Amino acid sequence: MDRHGLEVLSRERCLELLREVPVGRVGLSVDALPVVLPVNFVLAGDEIIFGTSEGKKARAARWETIVAFEADGWDPLGHTGWSVLVQGRARLLGSPGELERARSLPLRAWAGVTEPRYVAIRTDLVNGRRLAPAAEHSTPSPR
Amino acid sequence: MDRHGLEVLSRERCLELLREVPVGRVGLSVDALPVVLPVNFVLAGDEIIFGTSEGKKARAARWETIVAFEADGWDPLGHTGWSVLVQGRARLLGSPGELERARSLPLRAWAGVTEPRYVAIRTDLVNGRRLAPAAEHSTPSPR
Repeated sequence: MDRHGLEVLSRERCLELLREVPVGRVGLSVDALPVVLPVNFVLAGDEIIFGTSEGKKARAARWETIVAFEADGWDPLGHTGWSVLVQGRARLLGSPGELERARSLPLRAWAGVTEPRYVAIRTDLVNGRRLAPAAEHSTPSPR
Repeated sequence: MDRHGLEVLSRERCLELLREVPVGRVGLSVDALPVVLPVNFVLAGDEIIFGTSEGKKARAARWETIVAFEADGWDPLGHTGWSVLVQGRARLLGSPGELERARSLPLRAWAGVTEPRYVAIRTDLVNGRRLAPAAEHSTPSPR
């Protein structure tokens, strides 16, 4: 439990959950304004990999800035779910071997990404929480 | 279409989509590191409203910083979907009238949020995109 009473997920469990969802979101600063953008990603080894067109995310990776990456999963009403936050340095994949490996990953190309840059985010810091309804709002279940 | 060939959604359509999902994500900087955190939210008027415990999001709102807010919707495999990005000043709701209004909203309390602070984000800047598979990766359909 964290100081808010939420269940803290282990790094291992967080990485497992990241393998279960196809879409995550990258958080970065652009011109001093926070931005959150969706990406179709794959966890490969201990790096988050995604393809993107030349733009905000590719620039952040070229500058090797530290970015946030978030993925989550929810029941349809948002009652319960989980959220994993990764903070780590982003980099552009550049070597022929890295690019070949990235192209072989099950990444889906979205319209607009014609010549993808591949970005890797190191999972240096991984934090996960499981979110459940507040106790006072849930119906007590007999045990 | 934007410069990447993605369908640009109107502000009106973006706000409609924000009414369809219960969970969004707030992007902000904490100690110069980007952070993305999930929130259960409601679009009320032209503000995004959510409850949170005392912490990073409440602090950002108390300082009235500009934050990012993202919500999206996807098919299960991440092939197609939409994403809306809001950038606007956050503030803590404080007046008795505002707090009463916030408490009447269909916001779900997550465990850990016992005495919620209510945060409003102005929808000053709203950008939305519809994401579809890249044409070269999809099977041409007869017309």
